Parts: sequence; C-alpha cells; structure tokens
Amino acid sequence: MPAHATPAPSASPVTVLGLGLMGYALADALLTAGHQVTVWNRTPAKADPLVARGATLAPSVREAIESSPLTISCVLDYDTQHALLTPAAGALHGRTLVSLTNGTPAQARETEAWALALGATYLDGGIMAVPHQIDTPEAFLFYSGAQDPFDQHHPTLSVLGTPHHLSTDVGVAALYDLALLSAMDMMFAGFFHATAVATSHKGTSATDFAPHLVAWLTSMLSMVPLMAADIDSPAAPAYAQSLDLVAAAAQNMADAAREAGVLPDHFDRSVTALRQRIASGETEYTAASAVSQLRVPARG
Amino acid sequence: MPAHATPAPSASPVTVLGLGLMGYALADALLTAGHQVTVWNRTPAKADPLVARGATLAPSVREAIESSPLTISCVLDYDTQHALLTPAAGALHGRTLVSLTNGTPAQARETEAWALALGATYLDGGIMAVPHQIDTPEAFLFYSGAQDPFDQHHPTLSVLGTPHHLSTDVGVAALYDLALLSAMDMMFAGFFHATAVATSHKGTSATDFAPHLVAWLTSMLSMVPLMAADIDSPAAPAYAQSLDLVAAAAQNMADAAREAGVLPDHFDRSVTALRQRIASGETEYTAASAVSQLRVPARG
Ligand SMILES: NC(=O)c1ccc[n+]([C@@H]2O[C@H](COP(=O)([O-])OP(=O)(O)OC[C@H]3O[C@@H](n4cnc5c(N)ncnc54)[C@H](OP(=O)(O)O)[C@@H]3O)[C@@H](O)[C@H]2O)c1
Ligand SMILES: NC(=O)c1ccc[n+]([C@@H]2O[C@H](COP(=O)([O-])OP(=O)(O)OC[C@H]3O[C@@H](n4cnc5c(N)ncnc54)[C@H](OP(=O)(O)O)[C@@H]3O)[C@@H](O)[C@H]2O)c1
Repeated sequence: MPAHATPAPSASPVTVLGLGLMGYALADALLTAGHQVTVWNRTPAKADPLVARGATLAPSVREAIESSPLTISCVLDYDTQHALLTPAAGALHGRTLVSLTNGTPAQARETEAWALALGATYLDGGIMAVPHQIDTPEAFLFYSGAQDPFDQHHPTLSVLGTPHHLSTDVGVAALYDLALLSAMDMMFAGFFHATAVATSHKGTSATDFAPHLVAWLTSMLSMVPLMAADIDSPAAPAYAQSLDLVAAAAQNMADAAREAGVLPDHFDRSVTALRQRIASGETEYTAASAVSQLRVPARG
Repeated sequence: MPAHATPAPSASPVTVLGLGLMGYALADALLTAGHQVTVWNRTPAKADPLVARGATLAPSVREAIESSPLTISCVLDYDTQHALLTPAAGALHGRTLVSLTNGTPAQARETEAWALALGATYLDGGIMAVPHQIDTPEAFLFYSGAQDPFDQHHPTLSVLGTPHHLSTDVGVAALYDLALLSAMDMMFAGFFHATAVATSHKGTSATDFAPHLVAWLTSMLSMVPLMAADIDSPAAPAYAQSLDLVAAAAQNMADAAREAGVLPDHFDRSVTALRQRIASGETEYTAASAVSQLRVPARG
C-alpha cells in the first residue's frame, strides 16, 4: 500500500465499522490518505495499530457513526450489519452509509429502503480486490444507489480503489459483485482441481505447475470478449466447436481426474449434460448455448 | 498467423492426419514455415485450400505416413486415431508419430507401447492454444516421451508454438494438458455463470460486462502463485480466510443466482460442503484445504 505523499488537506472524516482483514485494510488506506478515521470493531484490540497511527476507536457503533458524515460498513454479512446498525439507527439521519459488506441485490434494496426511512443516504458497494490490493491500481469497487452521495464522497471512496458508479438501481453493484465473485470462485475451483491432478505426478509441486496455469488462463481470457460478442449475437457465432469434440474432451478430463485420484464429479456431470444435448440432436457448442443452459427454464 | 519471411531451407517433410479446426491450423502453419506438408483427412475437401498452397493430399493414411519421417495426428479422440492408424501401422516403422489428439495419460502410455512395438518412436503432446493462436507467441505445447525424437523434430514442432518437453514419462503431457483444460473449462463455466447473472439486469449485455470480468479474473490470477506456495507448504499459509466468511459469500452467490433466474446448483453444493466443514469444527479456508477436499479419500 503506497504512502500518499501529500494527504488531501480537505480529506473528509470517515468512519469504518468492522476491522476484519478487509475493514482493517480500508481504514488503514484512509488513514494513510490523511483522513480523520474513526473505527469500531466487535473485537476492539484489532484497532490498536490503527489507533497508534492516529485513528479514533469509538466505544459504540452509535458514537462511531456520529463522528463522521460518512460511515463505511464492512462486516461478515448483512445479518451482522443489520444487527449492529439497528440500535444506532437514529445516528444515521443526515449521514451517508456505504455498505461494503458482501450481500445480494435484494439485501441492498432492503437496506436502501431502511436507510432512506431513517433520513440517511445509502450506497451499496462491492469490493473487487483482496485486502492487500486496497489502495493499489488493481483495486476497483462497484457502487450503486443515489448519484449525489457518490459524487460528494468520490474523493474518499477513490482512496480505496477505482470507484465505478454502475446505476441508481441500488441492486446492480451487488449483482455485478456476486457475478464476478462467482467467476472467481469457479476459476479458483478449476485451479485447485488442476493442481490436484497435476501434482498426482510425483515430482510436480503446485509451485512448479502454477506458471503453466497462469500462462494458459491468461491466454484463454483473451477469448472472453469474442465469446461475449457471440452471447450477445448468437445467430452467427465467431467461435463454435463440435459438441462431439467438447464431450470427448470432458470425458478425458473426468478420466484423467479419476486416474489421478481426484474427484471427477464436475466433469462427469458435464459429460452427462453434453451427451444429452448430442442425443437431442444438437451438434454445436457455443458460448451462447452454454449460457442458455444455465438459465432456469421458464415455468410453463 | 504471421507469414515467415524466410522458410528454413532444411525444413523437414511432415505429415498431418486430421484437418479439423486444429489439424488445419497445424498444417497451415507448417506450410507457411516452408515445410513440405502431406495431409490426410476423412473429408478430403477440407484439404483444398492447403493443396492450393502446395500441400499434398495423400489418398490413404498409409501413404500419408510414408511421405514423411514425422507424422502429427490431430483427430477427434484416441479411439478415432487408433482406428485410423491400425490399418497403416506397418508404415510407422522407423518413423516418428506425434499425437496431438486430446487424450488421457493412460491412452498416451498405451499408444507409446503400441508404437514402440511397431519400431516407431512416439511423442505424446498437448496443444495449449486455440486454432487461431497456432504459430503465435501465445501458443505452447506440452510433449512427453523419448527425448531423441523431440530433439530431432524440435525445429518442426517449434513452428506450432513453444514446445515444452516435460518428461520421458509419456503420460505427463496428457496429465498437464487435461489439468489445464479442466482449469479452463471451469474458468469458462464461471464466465458463463457470471454473464447469465449480470445480464439478468436489463440493459447489461455480455459485451458490457466482459471487461469487468477480464479485469477481475486477471487481478485474481495474481493470487495463484501465492496460493500454490500455500498448497506446497500448508503449515503456515500466507493467505487464509474464515470458513464463516467463505460460506456467507457462497450463500450470497447461490441466492443472487436464484434471484437472477440462473441455476444455483454449483454454489448450493459449495454452501453444503462449507457448512459441513464448519460443523465438523474447521474454522479456516486455505488453498491447501480446498485442494485436499478434491482428493479421493484413501480406501480404508
Ligand atoms: N477478504 C477479502 O478478500 C474480501 C474481498 C472483498 C469483499 N470482502 C467482504 O468484506 C466483508 C468483511 O470481510 P473480511 O475479509 O474483513 O472478513 P473477516 O476478516 O472474517 O472479518 C469479519 C468481520 O466481521 C465482524 N463480525 C463477524 N461476526 C460479527 C458479529 N456477530 N458481530 C459483530 N461483528 C462481527 C468481525 O469482527 P471481529 O473482528 O470481532 O471478529 C470482523 O470485523 C465481507 O462481507 C467480505 O465478503 C472481503
Ligand atoms: N479446437 C481447439 O481449440 C483445440 C485445442 C487444443 C486441442 N484440440 C484437440 O485437437 C483435436 C482435434 O480438434 P479439432 O478442433 O480439429 O476438432 P474438429 O474441428 O471437430 O475436427 C475433428 C477431426 O477429427 C476427424 N474425425 C472425427 N471423427 C472421425 C472418424 N470417425 N474417422 C476419421 N476422422 C474423424 C474429423 O474429420 P472430418 O473433417 O472428416 O470430420 C476432423 O479432422 C482434438 O483432440 C481436440 O481436443 C483442439
């Protein structure tokens, strides 16, 4: 995390609720950027290094909120967040609450309605970074909800990572956030699976194999824009493979996993689904067909 | 595919069996590099543009093999390959066969034994590229099997993409190939899922969403070497999260998919597995623990 050479003289006071790995990184970055930072955490000792650097530890959530025009909340989940905020709700009147706690679009909409009823302004956010990336060029954050508080607090929010205001529809940040987290989760699941398979060879460590995996996935990410265009315009796909070929490869992936002592379930399911499509007369595998397989069938 | 300014004068004759999307790209690159290329394909008309550029279309697999010291086979699968090669097996004596057909380590080992019994040399390979990447800097290929034929044919094989000879154990190229294909398959499954979720928002196209996804997955790929080190040294992980946090996020991914009309099965299974680990007293989620979950339990 780079030390900012010149803290903005007008840096606005800000409160951070939650000092887990992520909340701590957020508070730390804001402190480094010269903000007057008030923090609160269930386990107060986690604030000690921040207090040593000038942060204020509030004795209660209410007092934490009252210390700043802007409160950023980053705790385990929305249930936890709601339980913490409810007794301090009156303090939110006239202030802005930004939730960077991971949650669903429905939770964002409920929380916006709750905050508006209290006379607060609300932004829902999603952090596209791991803690050590906060305040680096890799970090970006999605926000949705009212435009005004976003514009007003833009300098503060920019400290954490590049802020993208996606929509005044408050659910969109959570939708994009969870979509991207899902893609990450499945990419990492693929990395774990590939590592389990490759390290079944005596003499191959995860560290030996990782550069091949990074090179390959980086190369394959270049296909994403082409496939996205095919998803949007399914009539004339630029990239199509025969379903026979894709099924044969999936069968090999399942068999190689089994040979390597790795659970083949994901690929067994793929083989079954691909064979069903072949049996029903389909011949072509495209990105658009793969996406449409994932949509819940419309109720008849 | 770049046109090679000066075809190597010593470019060795080479035969390509199979002119599907990939076999065609291989033959095309070898022709561009100045090799004397003989081709064979079940559907001979696919050879027409290559013949117009100087390739020879052989009337049979046997005659194709007899035209070159090196035959590269790239067809649907090993069953197809075996069926094509068996009637022409005698022609392989004293020649090198390279299989770039996708297959398992066990298939590579069987094919090596079969080829050696015929007096042929054998290399098993895996192509880490899509057809349009052949003969570009992105393309790399894994090989395993005897070192001699690899060294002898290195100039020819280098035309296709960077050749990595992994091991004299002939199964390793297929093991790495299928491990990486598995990782790609799961990354693309994540991309398809994320796109289905994000495009449930009216006004978001796959093309709008793709740059966010590429930025995010590129950023998260930077975690792979750190996690690989943790997998190799599980005692002191550099990167750990609480299982509660990971389970909460997985629940949100499942719920967001459901809200978006996308099948939540993958994430429902994750939630169940994570909750079981929490119930059994585990508290920490690490890359090493994720990999060990994938290994088939040892028989008692
Ligand atoms: N870590 C990441 O890579 C990452 C990335 C993007 C988004 N996020 C999101 O950021 C949020 C926080 O993540 P994190 O990594 O900081 O998690 P963490 O390290 O596990 O910390 C969890 C935080 O929630 C608090 N908490 C948990 N249960 C509580 C309760 N019952 N009452 C009061 N406080 C409670 C914890 O307080 P104590 O300190 O007292 O336990 C701690 O402040 C999550 O929604 C997460 O999805 C994390
Ligand atoms: N495409 C890729 O991105 C890619 C990447 C890496 C590796 N590979 C591997 O490369 C190999 C070929 O893939 P591809 O993309 O070229 O597939 P493709 O376009 O579907 O072509 C399949 C090839 O197999 C032949 N074939 C199929 N069934 C046959 C049979 N019963 N008898 C004789 N020939 C038969 C086809 O002949 P016809 O032309 O007569 O149908 C064609 O030459 C596969 O093992 C694949 O996994 C492909």
